[in-house]
Amino acid sequence: MPSIILYFFIIIDYNITIVYTGDYVQMLVRNLLGLRFKETPKDCVIASHALMMKGGYMKYMCNGSYSLFMPARRITRKIENIIREEMDKIGGQEVLFPVVMPASLWEESGRYTSIGSEMARFTDRNNAKMVLGMTHEEAAVHLARDTAQSYTDYPFMIYQIQTKFRDEPRARGGLIRVREFTMKDAYSFHTSQEDLERYYDICFDAYTRIFKRVGAKNVIAVKSDSGMMGGSVSHEFMLLTDIGEDSLAICTNEGCGYKANVEVAECITGEIKTQKENLEEVFTPHIETIEKLVKKLGITSGAMCKAVVYQKNENDEYVVVFIRGDLEVNETKLRNVVGGEVHAAYITEESGIVAGFIGPVNFNGKAKVVFDRSLKGIESLACGANKKDYHFKGMNIKRDVGEVEYVDVAKAFDGGVCPCCGKPTITVKRGIEVGNIFQLGTKYTKSMNMTYVDSDGTRKNPIMGCYGIGVGRLAASICEEQHDDYGPVWPISIAPWQVEICCLQSENETVKKVADELYDKLDKAGVEVLYDDRDIRAGAMFADADLFGIPVRAVVSLKTCDRGVVEISLRDKSFKGETPIDGADKYIADMVKELLAKY
Amino acid sequence: MPSIILYFFIIIDYNITIVYTGDYVQMLVRNLLGLRFKETPKDCVIASHALMMKGGYMKYMCNGSYSLFMPARRITRKIENIIREEMDKIGGQEVLFPVVMPASLWEESGRYTSIGSEMARFTDRNNAKMVLGMTHEEAAVHLARDTAQSYTDYPFMIYQIQTKFRDEPRARGGLIRVREFTMKDAYSFHTSQEDLERYYDICFDAYTRIFKRVGAKNVIAVKSDSGMMGGSVSHEFMLLTDIGEDSLAICTNEGCGYKANVEVAECITGEIKTQKENLEEVFTPHIETIEKLVKKLGITSGAMCKAVVYQKNENDEYVVVFIRGDLEVNETKLRNVVGGEVHAAYITEESGIVAGFIGPVNFNGKAKVVFDRSLKGIESLACGANKKDYHFKGMNIKRDVGEVEYVDVAKAFDGGVCPCCGKPTITVKRGIEVGNIFQLGTKYTKSMNMTYVDSDGTRKNPIMGCYGIGVGRLAASICEEQHDDYGPVWPISIAPWQVEICCLQSENETVKKVADELYDKLDKAGVEVLYDDRDIRAGAMFADADLFGIPVRAVVSLKTCDRGVVEISLRDKSFKGETPIDGADKYIADMVKELLAKY
Repeated sequence: MPSIILYFFIIIDYNITIVYTGDYVQMLVRNLLGLRFKETPKDCVIASHALMMKGGYMKYMCNGSYSLFMPARRITRKIENIIREEMDKIGGQEVLFPVVMPASLWEESGRYTSIGSEMARFTDRNNAKMVLGMTHEEAAVHLARDTAQSYTDYPFMIYQIQTKFRDEPRARGGLIRVREFTMKDAYSFHTSQEDLERYYDICFDAYTRIFKRVGAKNVIAVKSDSGMMGGSVSHEFMLLTDIGEDSLAICTNEGCGYKANVEVAECITGEIKTQKENLEEVFTPHIETIEKLVKKLGITSGAMCKAVVYQKNENDEYVVVFIRGDLEVNETKLRNVVGGEVHAAYITEESGIVAGFIGPVNFNGKAKVVFDRSLKGIESLACGANKKDYHFKGMNIKRDVGEVEYVDVAKAFDGGVCPCCGKPTITVKRGIEVGNIFQLGTKYTKSMNMTYVDSDGTRKNPIMGCYGIGVGRLAASICEEQHDDYGPVWPISIAPWQVEICCLQSENETVKKVADELYDKLDKAGVEVLYDDRDIRAGAMFADADLFGIPVRAVVSLKTCDRGVVEISLRDKSFKGETPIDGADKYIADMVKELLAKY
Repeated sequence: MPSIILYFFIIIDYNITIVYTGDYVQMLVRNLLGLRFKETPKDCVIASHALMMKGGYMKYMCNGSYSLFMPARRITRKIENIIREEMDKIGGQEVLFPVVMPASLWEESGRYTSIGSEMARFTDRNNAKMVLGMTHEEAAVHLARDTAQSYTDYPFMIYQIQTKFRDEPRARGGLIRVREFTMKDAYSFHTSQEDLERYYDICFDAYTRIFKRVGAKNVIAVKSDSGMMGGSVSHEFMLLTDIGEDSLAICTNEGCGYKANVEVAECITGEIKTQKENLEEVFTPHIETIEKLVKKLGITSGAMCKAVVYQKNENDEYVVVFIRGDLEVNETKLRNVVGGEVHAAYITEESGIVAGFIGPVNFNGKAKVVFDRSLKGIESLACGANKKDYHFKGMNIKRDVGEVEYVDVAKAFDGGVCPCCGKPTITVKRGIEVGNIFQLGTKYTKSMNMTYVDSDGTRKNPIMGCYGIGVGRLAASICEEQHDDYGPVWPISIAPWQVEICCLQSENETVKKVADELYDKLDKAGVEVLYDDRDIRAGAMFADADLFGIPVRAVVSLKTCDRGVVEISLRDKSFKGETPIDGADKYIADMVKELLAKY
C-alpha cells in the first residue's frame, strides 16, 4: 500500500486526458504482507523450507501447495525473466497452453491410461473428461501439427511458463517438491536426429547460462532416465546438495567428467577372486540375513549370490534378481529390463519361491529370473538352496546353472569403476533436479499423427525434444545452497530486492531524512530497494533483514549520521564498510552494478 | 528458431566461465509457428474471433479453451506488464495463489455449495476434495489472515496474474468468453469503509490508466450488480461494442454522466394516462399474445398489465411478475427482490395458474406475486382474468386488487428517464466487461474469521475490495474495437511487434542487404521488429502483415531500393510515405517513440 501518494487528475472526458503526477510508492517493510519469526515450524526438515517459512516467503495452503508472498513472487519473476531471455536467445517462441485439457488429447498419446493417479482428472459440466496438465507434450503437438506441414517449417521451438499440477504422492520440503508449480516447458521439432542433437546442445548451453545467471553455484548436468516422457538421450541438471532426492554417480578423475544419475549409471565392479570349489549344501538354520551367512561361511559379501524378489505391477508376475551380495538393485534399470513398473514382492506359498533361501540352482519358482552382470566370472559363490534352512556354497553359475544372460541392474556405488575412464573413481553425491532436457524422438508425433511433407515428397513424423525447468524448485534449491543460520543469501540476480535500507531511530528527523533521501535517489537510479523504517530494536530489524537475504544492506542510524556516513555490508559477509552520506547512493548503485555483472 | 546463431564457449570448469558471443536471433515470419489464412472459420461470428483465428494468434483446444501462439502471447504479456506497473504504482504487492485449492477453504466462505457447476471440482489421490480457482477471495483471506493482526498492518493490497478456470456454460466469441483465462485479480483490506472507498477510487483511477495505456478507446465505467461476489458498490469497466453481451443504460444528457449496467439501472418510465373505467370481463378466444390483445381492445401496450412467470431455482416456487406491457423484466433485479436465482417457469395444471390469461384480480395460483412500479398510478389497465379465453379491461390495481407493494424489476430502455438527471435521455448500448471493481465489505473476512485488533483493543473484521481484469478478453476486445476487414489494428503499446519489415524480392542481394541492415539497426536500438523475408507475392505478404496488425510497416523492395528509400506506412492508414535508406532506422525508431508516447 502506498505510503506517499499524491494525485492530480484532470479528466476532461472519460477518454481521457490524465495528468498523473502520483508520487512514487516507497517499498516499506512495515507495509509488506507476511510474518517473519524465529521458531522453525515443526514440519520443516530442510533449511530452505524452514527459512522460506520463517522469512514470510510463502504460506502453506494444502499438501504440496503454497501461496507466495511478494518477496517469493519477485524471486520467481526474476527467474522466469532470465529463463525467458535465454529461451528467446535460442529462437524460442513463447506460447501458452491451457492448464485444463480434454482427456481426448491425452488418449491420443496413450498417456491418459499410462499415467496413474499423478494426473488430476475431472469431468466438466457437460460430462466431458478433463485433465490438469502436468506436462504439455500433447498440447505442443496439438498446437503445431496443423501448421508445420512442410519440412521448410522446421526446426522450431515453442515454450511456455505456466502453472502445472501433478498429484505428487511425496510432496515435501516446501517448494522443493510440490503438487502445483510453475514450470518453463519447451518443445522443439526437427526433421532429423542430427538437427535435434544440434539443437539439444544449444539448449544444453542455454540451460548452463540460465543456472549461472540465476546464481546457482553447484549445478551439474547428468545423464538420466527418460521415464514416462519416452525418448532416449536425456540429461538432468542437478543442484548438488546433501538434501537432494537423487543420487548421482560422478567420476572424480580429472579430465574424465563422467556424471550420471545413479538410476542409469552403469555399474562396473572390481573383480572378486574366489577358487573354484564343489557345490555343497550347508545347513543354515535361523540364518536369514546376508551378514549372518557371510559370517557363518567365512566369505565376503561379494562372494554371495543374493536374490531380490519383485513383482511386475502389470500382472504381479514375480521377478527374481540375482546380484552380488555387496550390491543393491537399481529399480530404474530393472524396470527398463523387464519393460514395466515393478514393486517389492509379496511371496506366497504357491509361488514355489522359498523366501530367505532363494538361489539359482534348482530354482523352480514361477518367476522371471534376472542375473546381474556383477556375478559374471565369479568362480565360487554362496547362494540359497531353494529349501528352507539350506544354502549352497561353491556354486559356479556356468557349471551349476548353465549359460545365462547377464544384464546391468546394479546400483552404482562409491568407489565403483567409472564406465568412461575405467578408473575406480566413482563418487555418489546427492542432488536436486532443477531442470531436464530430453530427446523425445517420435513418441508423440507418431502416436498423435503429426506429419510433414519432406523434401522428397514423403510424409514423416517430426522428431521432438523437450526441455523443462521448475521455477519454484529452482528458487528453493538456491536457498538451500546459499543460506546461513539466519536466512537465505540470495544472488543479486534473483534477490527480491537489491538493497535494503535499515533506518534505526527513524523517529529522529535527521536520520529519517538521510534514509528517505537515500531511498529516493536509489529508486530514481533504478535500484530496487526495500526500506525498513520501523521503530524496532536494531537486533530485530537485522534479524528480519537476514531473512530477506538482500545482497546489499545500508544502515542509517544516529551513530552513522553523527559520523556523516552510511554503513554498508553484504549479506554474504564478504564486505562491511562505510561511505559518506553524500554520494552514498552512487556508491551503492555502483556496488549493485558490480554484483549484477557477476551473473 | 535461430536463423543466425554463432557461439563461442570457453568452458573451463562447469562452474563456469562462459564467454557467450551468440549473435542475435532474427524474428522472421518464416520461422513463426502459426498459419494465416483467408477463409473465416464457420464458428466465428464476431470479428475479433475470426481475425485472431485467421491471423494465427490462437488454436482451439476444446470448448472455451485455446492455446496461444507467439503473437497473442506477446500481446497478453504486454497487457500483463502494463497492469503490473499500474498495480505496483498504487502499492499493490504481487503474490501468487494456487490454481488448485482445497474445497475446505471454499467451505469456510460458503461458496463451495453456493456456486454451482461453474466451479470445477475433483478429488485428489487421497480423496481430498479440490476445486479449481475461478476467483481468489478465499485464497487472499487465507494468505492474509494470520499476518495482518493489528490495525497498523492495514491497509494493504495484494494481487496476482494467474490462470483461472470457470466452467462457463456459454463459452463463445474466441477469447471473449472462455473457460480458462488469465486474470489479474487484486484484493485490498481496510479497517474502515472510508478507507476502502478512498482506495476504491485510487483503483478506479489505476484502471482508467490501464485501459488508456493498452489503447482501448471506448471503455466506460458503469455501476453494476455484485452477483456472486457479494458486497455492495461495484463498477464494471465496459468496452463499448455492438457485439457486447451486456446492455448499458447511458444518459446522453451532457453534464449528467449516468452510466449503469441495465442489470441494475433503475427503470423510470414516463406516465401512461388512461381514464378510470369499470372492471369488465372480455371474451378473448385465441388471443395469446399482447399484440393481438392490444389490437382487439384498442389500447397501447403501455396500458396492459402483463404477467411474466418464473420459478425459483431453490424450490421451484412460482414467481409471477406483473409489469407494464411495453416493458421487459430484468432478471437480475428480480433475483435480488426474491433473494435467489430464478428460471423461466414450466406451468403445471396443479399450480392454479392459467397460462396466457394471468392477471392480478382474483389470482389464486400458488405463487409469489411481484408488482413492477411501472404499473403504479395507471387508472385503467387490461390484464388476464385467470380464466381461459378471458381478459379484464378497466382494471385499477388499488380498487380491484388493493394496496400492493411496488418494486423496480423492469429493464431500463432506450428513451427512458435518467434516474440521475430526470431527463428522458437514457440510451441503451452494448458492451464487453473488461474489468470490474467491487466493494466487498466483510462477506469473506466474517465467514472466514479474519480479524485484527483495532486501536481500541477490540477485534474486528477487515473490510475488503476486489479488482479484476481479464487479460485475454481485453486483448480480444481491443481487436474487436480496432480492426478493419483485413486484420487487427493493434495499439502500439500492446502490438506483438512495433515494426514489421516487408522485404520483397529478398532473393536480390541489395534488397536483402538493405532490409537486413535495417532490421539489425532497429533491433540494436531496442525496437521490436518482425521481419518478413519470404519469397512470396507482395499481395500475400501484405495480407499477412494486415493480419499481424503491427503499427509501423517498412517495405523494402527493388523499386524502393532503386529510389534509395524505404516505404513507411501505418497500419491504421493514417500515414504513408517514404524515407531515405540512410537514416531510415532513426526515422522509424522516432516514429515508434512518438506512437508509444500516446499511450
